[in-house]
Amino acid sequence: MGRILITGGTVITADEEGRVFAPGDVAVDGEVIVYVGPPLAREGAVEDAGAAGPASGTLPAGWRPERIIAAQGRLVLPGLINAHTHAAMTLLRGYAEDLPLMVWLQEKIFPAEARLTEEDIYWGTLLAQLEMIRSGTTAFADMYFGMAMVARAVEESGLRASLARGLIGISSEGERALEEAVSLVRSWHGAAGGRIRCLLGPHAPYTCPPAYLKKVMAEASKLGVGLHIHLAETREECEESRKSTGKSQIENLEELGFFELPVLAAHCVHLEPGDREILARRGVAVAHNPTSNLKLGNGIAPVAELLEAGVTVALGTDGAASNNDLDLFEELRLAALLQKGRTGDPAALPAAQAVSLATRMGAQALGLAGVVGELAPGRQADLILVRADSPRLTPVHDPLAAVVYAAHGDDVELTMVAGRVLYEGGRFLTLDEERIRREVERRAARLRGLEGPAR
Amino acid sequence: MGRILITGGTVITADEEGRVFAPGDVAVDGEVIVYVGPPLAREGAVEDAGAAGPASGTLPAGWRPERIIAAQGRLVLPGLINAHTHAAMTLLRGYAEDLPLMVWLQEKIFPAEARLTEEDIYWGTLLAQLEMIRSGTTAFADMYFGMAMVARAVEESGLRASLARGLIGISSEGERALEEAVSLVRSWHGAAGGRIRCLLGPHAPYTCPPAYLKKVMAEASKLGVGLHIHLAETREECEESRKSTGKSQIENLEELGFFELPVLAAHCVHLEPGDREILARRGVAVAHNPTSNLKLGNGIAPVAELLEAGVTVALGTDGAASNNDLDLFEELRLAALLQKGRTGDPAALPAAQAVSLATRMGAQALGLAGVVGELAPGRQADLILVRADSPRLTPVHDPLAAVVYAAHGDDVELTMVAGRVLYEGGRFLTLDEERIRREVERRAARLRGLEGPAR
Repeated sequence: MGRILITGGTVITADEEGRVFAPGDVAVDGEVIVYVGPPLAREGAVEDAGAAGPASGTLPAGWRPERIIAAQGRLVLPGLINAHTHAAMTLLRGYAEDLPLMVWLQEKIFPAEARLTEEDIYWGTLLAQLEMIRSGTTAFADMYFGMAMVARAVEESGLRASLARGLIGISSEGERALEEAVSLVRSWHGAAGGRIRCLLGPHAPYTCPPAYLKKVMAEASKLGVGLHIHLAETREECEESRKSTGKSQIENLEELGFFELPVLAAHCVHLEPGDREILARRGVAVAHNPTSNLKLGNGIAPVAELLEAGVTVALGTDGAASNNDLDLFEELRLAALLQKGRTGDPAALPAAQAVSLATRMGAQALGLAGVVGELAPGRQADLILVRADSPRLTPVHDPLAAVVYAAHGDDVELTMVAGRVLYEGGRFLTLDEERIRREVERRAARLRGLEGPAR
Repeated sequence: MGRILITGGTVITADEEGRVFAPGDVAVDGEVIVYVGPPLAREGAVEDAGAAGPASGTLPAGWRPERIIAAQGRLVLPGLINAHTHAAMTLLRGYAEDLPLMVWLQEKIFPAEARLTEEDIYWGTLLAQLEMIRSGTTAFADMYFGMAMVARAVEESGLRASLARGLIGISSEGERALEEAVSLVRSWHGAAGGRIRCLLGPHAPYTCPPAYLKKVMAEASKLGVGLHIHLAETREECEESRKSTGKSQIENLEELGFFELPVLAAHCVHLEPGDREILARRGVAVAHNPTSNLKLGNGIAPVAELLEAGVTVALGTDGAASNNDLDLFEELRLAALLQKGRTGDPAALPAAQAVSLATRMGAQALGLAGVVGELAPGRQADLILVRADSPRLTPVHDPLAAVVYAAHGDDVELTMVAGRVLYEGGRFLTLDEERIRREVERRAARLRGLEGPAR
């Protein structure tokens, strides 16, 4: 940390106006961005704005960088935000493939998860964070169990995260899990210099009956935190809701008052007439997980229509068992492609809008609007540099198209959170890559070898 | 070239039986694979086969490698085959984005292509080959104009290619283009030690009337080459065919005798009842281009049903203007994901079958069955090494799932064609990366700057 000037790159602000400075400078002071705009004169004075619009921010007189990062041939953009994952599932990457959903879940994933120890979760989460940091993700929303270990892993990595203990109301463990969730919030909400936030995570309407949801809502109100839930992921659960209650999942939750709290709703693939309007009116943020929804055979969420209705849509990878990696650049590209293919309209979800899903709207979804998600003075310095001089990215006729349609997470050269560099030029600065890979390989081999369900 | 032993990797043969040797060895002698199987004893003797089945190939007595490549932590697999692209369109990467199809084509792409010089095409094709070599593609089917320059670029790169001069029958240039195409075949078919093959490339049924197609077919018969065509890409062209002829495009071509020649048909998104059976019966190979079909708003080809009907389905990237990169690992992943999402069946297009699309079936589509596309003795040594020890690929519970769902082209560490290493550990051994990028950037800037349609 300190005073860092990133100079001469193509700066994609991802702000409301979609401004791009090419070339542009970004100045960081401590945890915070203090300038975004056309190249600063060497003395620190702000030059004329040029075509991209006026610069944002003015530097204090005499501001001098301690470090200058030359960003020629690089794209500079806000760190990407992964709004839905189960980080520790990296341990199960490739563990159960190409299987019908219920066989996958009940015969493979659940028994494997029952064998995970807290230490496994710690190491699996560290591995997930290596992947995320490497591929330009700076914040993520996680829902799993053993969440105190996840929080510890986030504290160490330097990433930003919104953590929720997953809650299954129909399980005999439902009450105990809720106690754990409350205790997680009390211990970790606002921790690690504010990088860690907590939510309560009722798993889904079909695993959490109304009475249980009400308890969760009451606790969330008391604690002043929001909710993270899976909604309308599979056709079956939606048909079941309609059949048994006469209403859609979303109508039921609205009736319950669930949406009076801030809600991050993963999936929302199978929506019924009227659902979109409820989501928009209630300010529910949707985490769209395009790869996972395809891989598990659930289909394609109506993202273009959700955006049209005014719903905040963020992007997620879901867990590595249904993806199989955590590269948000892939989700960005896939999200844009799928809406075009689904609607037959090549103009659907254009590049600039797609970028906003992974940045500004991701921040909104995590309750971090105005904190991160765009390059602007006063925002936390969560940003990435992407090499744009590889064969794959040559030429750059259009920087936003380059980010969405051609860049990979592999092109990320530097990842910064709150002004602190976490990855640069092939090296992880907060985590021990070799040790983490070794630990995860050892634990994954144990999982393959084990038979019974004992944890 | 020479005698190379690749030892200790996870060898994915992509042969009919889908054999994987973990660990396994591959021995290459000159252009050809001479052994695939369990690790050879140091003296060169073949050990017991183990669970994966018997080894293939026996080494001549006294065979000693000149070079040993340690492949621990690597996946070894056949080079991927890109069955449909327009390589030089890398010049137009990101040039026209998020536009309705006809605006994209007629207002942006066609005018830009009219300004391409033969030198542009040469450099654009070289850049495309950098990308393909870097991301593990060892053979590609190209259709464009200025094809003699493309052939020259392929001769230099060391890749394998099937080249077709695109033919538009309704253009006033149709006859001249056919002459050029015939001349391309005469000059280049079988050139570069057999790496270059030629096809004739009638663009599409809607741009090539029956009388013109017959001329093309007659020339192809005379020359002994196959045909590369776009079929059933957009809904509109298919509806138009039905409306104006009462038949589907595929029915019309069958009636014309078109499928009596070997045919590589790109896209086949919008098929009518009966079309699949014609394609299967006639041995037509389909090049599936999942990214391009989504990006241009054309939809998702019924690949699962085509395979079920016995049709050969290969994978393509299409040109960089509708993709925007040439990474076949992305197409592999997307192809598998889309069939699951489209059919609602997570077991659709499983990993092993997806790999065969990019390898063995790709070889069939390019008329290279038995030559490349699998790791087996007697096949040309077109193969790649993929690093499997990055965070993204840790752990490897399932090597085929790792290739399809988690690997990127960026993970490719070595690319070999006909026993010759074209790329290794970050370095291109046949092409000058810096110079090519510089030339393309200069030419792309010129294209952006030009206004009129003059070439």
